[in-house]
Amino acid sequence: MAFEITSLFLENLSALINSKNDLEITKLFNEVHYADIAEVLDEVSFDEAIYIIKLLDSEKTSEILTELEDDIREKILENLSAKEIAEEVEEMDSDDAADIIGELSDERQTKVINALEDDELAADIKELLSYDEETAGALMAKELVKVYETWTVAGCMRRIRGQAKDVTRVHSIYVVDKEDKLVGRLSLKDLIIAKSDQKIAEISKSKVDYVNVNEDDEEIAKIMAKYDLEAIPVVDDNNVLVGRITIDDIVDVLKEEAERDYQMAAGLTQDVDSDDSILQLTRARLPWLFLGLVGGIGAFLIMSIFEHSFKESAFVLFLFTPLVAAMAGNVGVQSSAIIVQGLANDDVKGSINKRLIKEMFLAALNGIILALFLLLFVWVYEGQILTALAISVSLVAVIIVAGLIGTFVPLFLNKRGIDPAIATGPFITTSNDIFGILIYFLIAKMILGI
Amino acid sequence: MAFEITSLFLENLSALINSKNDLEITKLFNEVHYADIAEVLDEVSFDEAIYIIKLLDSEKTSEILTELEDDIREKILENLSAKEIAEEVEEMDSDDAADIIGELSDERQTKVINALEDDELAADIKELLSYDEETAGALMAKELVKVYETWTVAGCMRRIRGQAKDVTRVHSIYVVDKEDKLVGRLSLKDLIIAKSDQKIAEISKSKVDYVNVNEDDEEIAKIMAKYDLEAIPVVDDNNVLVGRITIDDIVDVLKEEAERDYQMAAGLTQDVDSDDSILQLTRARLPWLFLGLVGGIGAFLIMSIFEHSFKESAFVLFLFTPLVAAMAGNVGVQSSAIIVQGLANDDVKGSINKRLIKEMFLAALNGIILALFLLLFVWVYEGQILTALAISVSLVAVIIVAGLIGTFVPLFLNKRGIDPAIATGPFITTSNDIFGILIYFLIAKMILGI
Repeated sequence: MAFEITSLFLENLSALINSKNDLEITKLFNEVHYADIAEVLDEVSFDEAIYIIKLLDSEKTSEILTELEDDIREKILENLSAKEIAEEVEEMDSDDAADIIGELSDERQTKVINALEDDELAADIKELLSYDEETAGALMAKELVKVYETWTVAGCMRRIRGQAKDVTRVHSIYVVDKEDKLVGRLSLKDLIIAKSDQKIAEISKSKVDYVNVNEDDEEIAKIMAKYDLEAIPVVDDNNVLVGRITIDDIVDVLKEEAERDYQMAAGLTQDVDSDDSILQLTRARLPWLFLGLVGGIGAFLIMSIFEHSFKESAFVLFLFTPLVAAMAGNVGVQSSAIIVQGLANDDVKGSINKRLIKEMFLAALNGIILALFLLLFVWVYEGQILTALAISVSLVAVIIVAGLIGTFVPLFLNKRGIDPAIATGPFITTSNDIFGILIYFLIAKMILGI
Repeated sequence: MAFEITSLFLENLSALINSKNDLEITKLFNEVHYADIAEVLDEVSFDEAIYIIKLLDSEKTSEILTELEDDIREKILENLSAKEIAEEVEEMDSDDAADIIGELSDERQTKVINALEDDELAADIKELLSYDEETAGALMAKELVKVYETWTVAGCMRRIRGQAKDVTRVHSIYVVDKEDKLVGRLSLKDLIIAKSDQKIAEISKSKVDYVNVNEDDEEIAKIMAKYDLEAIPVVDDNNVLVGRITIDDIVDVLKEEAERDYQMAAGLTQDVDSDDSILQLTRARLPWLFLGLVGGIGAFLIMSIFEHSFKESAFVLFLFTPLVAAMAGNVGVQSSAIIVQGLANDDVKGSINKRLIKEMFLAALNGIILALFLLLFVWVYEGQILTALAISVSLVAVIIVAGLIGTFVPLFLNKRGIDPAIATGPFITTSNDIFGILIYFLIAKMILGI
């Protein structure tokens, strides 16, 4: 497991490329896993990456291509001819092949597919490209091991030897009827244990989990995680077996989903990483910051209304507005994060009203504890018990409202079919800032009687 | 795939339990997957859950127990005798068995292990419990298919039939030398395709990925995701094969990791869900809220210093403090989230200085765009160009510093071996609130010359 990209390795590689020492470069990568080579290509200059890709044989480079970061792969593909891409793609599983071809322009897609020598793969790729993104169809591979229920174990073994060559990993063998409809499954283990003259129908399990080709990928991830499945067959609307999804693709779906939720909570509108350009990062960061700015202007306008009431008589109220806004924001984010996560795990059942009542008590409890502390501080520091009381009581109210907004908004969005994750982060903090400050001044005004 | 818990189903179940109609209850659950039954038990009353667990046979209930939510399982285990728990555990894979026994008190652990009839399982569980949490040892199962390199294919097939019965899924067959040291692997497919008189050493692949028994579980998740592995063998310090980890356990690790990071960013100190008690939720939420309160008091103290300078001459400055704090917080969270995610994916290479310089330019660009908008607003609304300029220029400075803090803190923590994820959320927003407001007033003071 011990391959590490060191600066020494990269220098050595650069020197070899400069001196066109192809033999040594091939040797250098001989024992290295393709996922590691992909990481090397992410590090070296673009010309060096192209040089290495063109040097290594397509069995290895096809795997490397699937592992590269999107932007680097895009650049490399631009520098390969349709013929060269077709050669790479012919070494891939159909799902990876379709993913890579799908990244090309429509025109190049056609060229590459026409350049494929394997007509079956070409047809498979065309089919896979026809499904909507983020569905089972877009995620599945066409390679699978399929047997007819009327076959015998011995016949089955013979044919599996043929089919299995194309399938990287045999998870389950899918059993179909004469119309290719999915009717059961069996494992290689079942087959090895069975007698050779038994019929497949006798030894197969009729209970088989499957998903429809139009099922949403995050839903499939939930199903596979819940039932601990390592592969799941995909059927069309007529129950005909059309493909299978393996757990390694689901691991990617889960990781992407987690990253997207995390980024949404952090106020990023696009999937960015720290190596992206300043322009890309600005595009991802500026929209929510702008919302924050508008929220801040909202808070300013509200505070302006109270300027004449409090500027002379209770100026100290203004000095606590950042505290009020921060508490409203933090409470709101906590509440919404718990709901968003619960919704993602299908854990949130029961009525919205019940949730809101519980959150009210919870926020009230937290608010009172925090407000008592603040009361003591303001009283001691400012020496005015009434002002201290006004600030503390309004803080409790602010925290309760913030908790309710944080609970209600994601539940409401979810009911409307909108991804509740957008309700975390800047959205909640900004709206809670405004409501928080308004409530704070209103209640303080009542208590102070100004 | 279509089991749904409806209120009708739950009512029906309750009625059957009340009338002690055991036959019908068993029939009701007959075709239901254990993961679904676990969800039913999460919904029904505790007495009903216990009733169902005691009714169903242990082959099914053992699987259900592993799927239950922690708190409900804990309560159910409290109501089972050591003997009853031992019976459940004997049906489980060793990793699940060790997880469940590990949740019991030390005294009950010994009782349950002593009550096990299977001595080998008892020894395996003791071994698994001895490893540190969140390591390969704690995650792995003892069940695996192991063959010696000197065996023939035919002999291997015979013995595998025996071993494979205990192994739910055969991913790879691990090849060991006579000292049980891992030397290679082969797949069932390789075995089926090989001739029966070939030696295992001839057909096995010597290149095999593995992890040490003390390896950190998140590191293993990274390795398995990167190399698309579905199972990985675990060896001790002498390279002796001691267990294997399968991808379904890694899916759980990935989900937990994502949830923990998300919760940390949202300011929750513990893993909670919305069904937890108000007390549990308060324990998870109050610590960061308290930090926010202290930060707010800090902001108050800073603003107090500037009260005399600005109260009469530029009161409007105070009205923009929530905006300044919000922008500082949002920028900080964005920067830190990108770094934290990059660190989690091993994407952050190169020097800290380079990152900071890039963030400075990025924050400056974002800051200037936002500040221009604010400048226009304040100028038009307040009619004072100098004040508008002071507020806008300080906003740019605040945003730059916030971005730098958000970038630096997680990188610094990571260098010190502390989980950088704690630097997101309330930690960054609170420190940025204080610094932001300080910088804001200092720069405004310089520009306004007060």
